[in-house]
Amino acid sequence: MMMSSVSPSARRYAVIGTGAIGGYYGACLQRAGFEVHYLLHRDYDTVQSQGLRIESVHGDFVLPQVRAYPTAAAMPPVDGVIIALKTTHNDLLQTLLPPLLGPDTVVITLQNGLDIEAPIAAAAPQHLILGGLCFICANKVGPGHIRHLDYGDILMGVYDPQRQAGGESPTLAAIAADFQAAGIPTQTTPDLYLARWRKLVWNVPFNGLSVVLDATTDWMITDPDIVALAAALMGEVVTAAAACGEQATPGGGRSLPADLVTQMLDHTRTMKPYRTSMKIDYDEGRPLEVEAILGNPLRAAQAAGVAVPRLEMLYHQVKALDRRALAQGDVSE
Amino acid sequence: MMMSSVSPSARRYAVIGTGAIGGYYGACLQRAGFEVHYLLHRDYDTVQSQGLRIESVHGDFVLPQVRAYPTAAAMPPVDGVIIALKTTHNDLLQTLLPPLLGPDTVVITLQNGLDIEAPIAAAAPQHLILGGLCFICANKVGPGHIRHLDYGDILMGVYDPQRQAGGESPTLAAIAADFQAAGIPTQTTPDLYLARWRKLVWNVPFNGLSVVLDATTDWMITDPDIVALAAALMGEVVTAAAACGEQATPGGGRSLPADLVTQMLDHTRTMKPYRTSMKIDYDEGRPLEVEAILGNPLRAAQAAGVAVPRLEMLYHQVKALDRRALAQGDVSE
Repeated sequence: MMMSSVSPSARRYAVIGTGAIGGYYGACLQRAGFEVHYLLHRDYDTVQSQGLRIESVHGDFVLPQVRAYPTAAAMPPVDGVIIALKTTHNDLLQTLLPPLLGPDTVVITLQNGLDIEAPIAAAAPQHLILGGLCFICANKVGPGHIRHLDYGDILMGVYDPQRQAGGESPTLAAIAADFQAAGIPTQTTPDLYLARWRKLVWNVPFNGLSVVLDATTDWMITDPDIVALAAALMGEVVTAAAACGEQATPGGGRSLPADLVTQMLDHTRTMKPYRTSMKIDYDEGRPLEVEAILGNPLRAAQAAGVAVPRLEMLYHQVKALDRRALAQGDVSE
Repeated sequence: MMMSSVSPSARRYAVIGTGAIGGYYGACLQRAGFEVHYLLHRDYDTVQSQGLRIESVHGDFVLPQVRAYPTAAAMPPVDGVIIALKTTHNDLLQTLLPPLLGPDTVVITLQNGLDIEAPIAAAAPQHLILGGLCFICANKVGPGHIRHLDYGDILMGVYDPQRQAGGESPTLAAIAADFQAAGIPTQTTPDLYLARWRKLVWNVPFNGLSVVLDATTDWMITDPDIVALAAALMGEVVTAAAACGEQATPGGGRSLPADLVTQMLDHTRTMKPYRTSMKIDYDEGRPLEVEAILGNPLRAAQAAGVAVPRLEMLYHQVKALDRRALAQGDVSE
């Protein structure tokens, strides 16, 4: 894919959490000419000496030289901070974010889940926060070595702490344009909160059940009992989304489309066999994003007075499995 | 334990399904002097030549000679037929039962679950059917070799096809007295249907979740999320039981006690670490009693107009796991 070159006055980016998502999108931006600074932890030595290696369905590439840092304190302020940590590490942002913030820095979280921006806003209270929902299959297969398997789109919107539609903004448009210039198919949405719920309609059943049932998507979508259960879970999430949207903006008409459940089930039938990100974390002994994906939507639904017994049951199940795995294993980060 | 000897005019019994339950209780009856005929399948040769060997917390014993049969057709009519097959094999009863039935034969099913007597009644339409709920930990550890780990009580009652309380009956009392004479602590109940629901209050959450979460009771009862979920599931079963009892006998006051959930959770905390029978079946690649334990209660609740979303979810999960296991493995019977 050919990219137009970027002017020297272009925005500078930092990536916090150079795993599959941060590494892939950061590398795309750098390849397109943007200056990108990467924060790394265990992979620092390898990436500092060997750079980043991307195997992608859109073509492999290597960036032999990257601006790698072992600590945030050593990094310069940038125009855009891309957060691609697991949400289970968001408590670290209070320390990691401040060194990267100039007066006009925008923070772009590429994390999944609901209500995950609050700790970011607490760590960068004066700054515009964007959320980017990533529709991508990518794994880190080794230090600085990322495999991009499929998709790659980002849907980006403005975070509103009152859970209202964040609307459009020139900065949102500019950041999305940078991502587009880097070859990343990027759309914007005026309602990030509703978009997060929409993504949860899929993530709640398939991430949750993949862990509980030790399953990949291809089996789940062909088993009649799992399909019935997934549809019921999706229905609960759709109902919760409507109630939470209505609660934040009465009469705002922020519902998800009526045929979304059918649409998503149909789409899942066409997908390649897929191990969800939560299942990969579970298999690797890492903490699960159980609060971002299940716990926060559950509590939001309950606060809006919506009965979500299946979501609650899935939360209890995944929470217990997560607790057991972390107690049993050597826990990776 | 000393048993009084039984008169030569005592009832003759047959055991269909000489596994842990059928083998243990059959051996107790035979040891006490009753004539017992055992139907065996894979274990026939071993048991025919070596008899039955019982290791029990109440004392080990061996019956070197037993009346073993490889087919029901070869067996004589008896006074009492004890059914200790897995409910997943109840479709075989249409063939297995008739040869054992004389004019006054009573059928005693020691199987777990709800509404499991219908296929028995269909195979023995003119006969009294008793249900015995077994509170026992016992495993078959080899052909004709049974290990009785704990408990052993039976609660026995008369089956009523209309789901009403079956009441007392002289035959029920006589059979229970035989079991008592064999050293088996046996009580009778006038309401077998409600007693089945009561047992399900424990079996639904702990059997179901033990399979879904790959768990034993000791972990489940100490994890706060599992305890919360188990309590919610138990609450659904208690509500369903009351509605189904009321549906069959309006104004009959057939509810379970209000503090049953707390009582059972407290009791579970005192139990030795325990692998449920459904989990043992799952680990051994055998079909699960998913309809008897989960599916029939689910459908009964739905027919009575009770919302049981968690029970429904558990049913879907266990059903899917059962289907996958049977499709993957060499399925034992």
